[in-house]
Amino acid sequence: MTYSLNFLTKEQVAYIAENYKTPIYVYSEKKLKEAVMAFDTFPSAFWHTTRYAMKANSNLNILTYFRKNGFKIDASSEYEVKRAIASGFEGKDISLSGQELSEDFEWILDTWVFFVATSLLQLETFWKKRPWGILGVRINPWVWKTYFAKVLTWWLTSSFGIWYEYIPQIQEIAKKYDLKITKIHLHIGSENTPESWVNTANIGLDFIKEFKDATILDMGGGMKKAIMPYEKSADLQAIGEAVKEKFIKFYEETGRKIHLELEPWKYAVICAGSFIAKVNDIVDTGKDGYTFVRTNTGMTDMPRVTMYWIQQQIIAPLVQEQEEKDYVVVGHCCESGDILTSKLYDQEIVEPMKLPKLSLWDILVFECTWAYNSSMSMKNYNSFPESAELLIKENEEIVEIRKKEELQEIWRNEKVVL
Amino acid sequence: MTYSLNFLTKEQVAYIAENYKTPIYVYSEKKLKEAVMAFDTFPSAFWHTTRYAMKANSNLNILTYFRKNGFKIDASSEYEVKRAIASGFEGKDISLSGQELSEDFEWILDTWVFFVATSLLQLETFWKKRPWGILGVRINPWVWKTYFAKVLTWWLTSSFGIWYEYIPQIQEIAKKYDLKITKIHLHIGSENTPESWVNTANIGLDFIKEFKDATILDMGGGMKKAIMPYEKSADLQAIGEAVKEKFIKFYEETGRKIHLELEPWKYAVICAGSFIAKVNDIVDTGKDGYTFVRTNTGMTDMPRVTMYWIQQQIIAPLVQEQEEKDYVVVGHCCESGDILTSKLYDQEIVEPMKLPKLSLWDILVFECTWAYNSSMSMKNYNSFPESAELLIKENEEIVEIRKKEELQEIWRNEKVVL
Repeated sequence: MTYSLNFLTKEQVAYIAENYKTPIYVYSEKKLKEAVMAFDTFPSAFWHTTRYAMKANSNLNILTYFRKNGFKIDASSEYEVKRAIASGFEGKDISLSGQELSEDFEWILDTWVFFVATSLLQLETFWKKRPWGILGVRINPWVWKTYFAKVLTWWLTSSFGIWYEYIPQIQEIAKKYDLKITKIHLHIGSENTPESWVNTANIGLDFIKEFKDATILDMGGGMKKAIMPYEKSADLQAIGEAVKEKFIKFYEETGRKIHLELEPWKYAVICAGSFIAKVNDIVDTGKDGYTFVRTNTGMTDMPRVTMYWIQQQIIAPLVQEQEEKDYVVVGHCCESGDILTSKLYDQEIVEPMKLPKLSLWDILVFECTWAYNSSMSMKNYNSFPESAELLIKENEEIVEIRKKEELQEIWRNEKVVL
Repeated sequence: MTYSLNFLTKEQVAYIAENYKTPIYVYSEKKLKEAVMAFDTFPSAFWHTTRYAMKANSNLNILTYFRKNGFKIDASSEYEVKRAIASGFEGKDISLSGQELSEDFEWILDTWVFFVATSLLQLETFWKKRPWGILGVRINPWVWKTYFAKVLTWWLTSSFGIWYEYIPQIQEIAKKYDLKITKIHLHIGSENTPESWVNTANIGLDFIKEFKDATILDMGGGMKKAIMPYEKSADLQAIGEAVKEKFIKFYEETGRKIHLELEPWKYAVICAGSFIAKVNDIVDTGKDGYTFVRTNTGMTDMPRVTMYWIQQQIIAPLVQEQEEKDYVVVGHCCESGDILTSKLYDQEIVEPMKLPKLSLWDILVFECTWAYNSSMSMKNYNSFPESAELLIKENEEIVEIRKKEELQEIWRNEKVVL
């Protein structure tokens, strides 16, 4: 099947391809507004805080937009904390739960960033700096895996968070140093259904019972947003209502009002970004082989197919051809893994997708490419400069929010000594 | 088993960890010299040219070293061409065979870069600019796959090169426009044995027969360098002798002296680089789980485990502990795929490796990490700045050849409009 444009109009695609250098990222302020609305109206028992997991896309404009619209920040490194602050956030609006122990930990604490310990060592480091301090803990619960190990953020094979069997140790440390653990964080990719979210809430609330000072349950993200036709978006309202009921029941049983935190990067914003590139060549490997569309983009802009063999919608909105063909879309790098169409979760199989019959320089739009692309790309491989980013403002004005990198910038920090 | 240091001494490791910020790349001029020597003495029938496939690691110092020592350049994009020229190479020393049709093609040709067409369209674009010109073609031969599709650079599932069945079309175009096709390029990961290289030579020489002007056969790279104990390095001399014999036989049969080109990035230099990082935390998932070593590095510096689940040697050279433990070494990103130990070619299974019992801030050395790391990393994910690069000169002097990126540089091209 072929797909249709998400937020861009054909005219905008043509205008951008004409006036800017492709490949280029395009973001939609309207879609950001929808994201904010969707989470502002999320049902919750005792109100909730939405934290943007900034690793998804950290352009200062994006951070600024969310700041002005009431989202808080989920940071995963001290560098993300500093970037959020550079965009105008205050420390108190940022929650840091990272794998790496911060080098500037004292500074982090001085800035009033809310610290979530993800290991016993982080907990110990915290109490040494802030005895009688307030913090959160991230717990890795026993939940049987449903995906392959590489995309798991919990279970035996995950290094994220403190293994649930160490809760007694956490409590002991907290008691000894009079720490107040006010937030319990877990992220178990809660999937789509109200039932799965209620399960997660049950696990989280069970942990909350163990921590008398806890007033916040951060349930992470994981609500699915449909990108491909075989996917189904989560029903936010239904999930919210089901979880709300649990929180109310918990209150009735314990007298404790628990505040909910959410980190819904994917659901909120993945479709707030599109990517525009061009057909650069069309080659084939004969009648038993495949037809390949080479493009002027690839893992240097969109690494997620290469890394996780996910699928995304590719559209040729300005192509008039009625005839469809099967194409394998590939990137511009001298790297066999640089592909843009894949069999889902399978690195072995090349799976073409249907597109209208393409010609050289035809424009391709990759939909729902907001997240983990600009922020995670192998941007300078084969010395390709980092691509520009555009924002389509609510009033339809198109503005450049990051200019394309100049080639020479790639080696700006090198010093020739030979 | 545990491993020993490659080119670094314990003293150098300690000095670097003390005087520079880890994580950090370290390269060895001595190892570069060995690489040059190994290929200068490669046996060949009618001499040979060694081209450094610069995508492996493009620091200007590396390019400069190879230029001063007689290597030529294999470039995969017009940007690589420009970078090579910025490092002092002349256009004539650069061979360009890229997936992407160059935007600055006229400039490329004016600079006397040797152009290798990798598609019929590239061939057509060339003749339109340079009728009666000289160029090469990259051919994708039918050779049954031996790896999984993502690392194949040939066969039905590969978009690299012109499918061999189109040789008549290439010849027709060449004849019509009086093009001289002087070089045939194929890269089929020729593996380890003299026999496999002779096979590749046979395929290449069969192609050469079809092109009367061809005087050069570029056999690409693919000679294996042992990194893990279960691997075996190619025997360069034996391979060279076997291929040489083929070329001589071809000469005897046809009267044509064919010059050999090689692009031996991996064999030549992968072990000319090491990477130094530190233990940042140690966590575990209970008695049925794993012990994880968290580090201050990850896919932001070394993406190849995440992408291809390869294995590399990790050493803790300054740790005195005799006791060994099984560790899963993971990166610092908030990304479940950010792992540094993997079951070979398997994303499903977490496989620990033995290391001496580790403590916080212990120094880890990742060996043979020259290639596809600094040049291909997801360098700014989680806003981690790009790491510095050091070179240990032949006289043992340690010099910084790239300084660590400042955090603010990451968003230097962003412009806040909201």
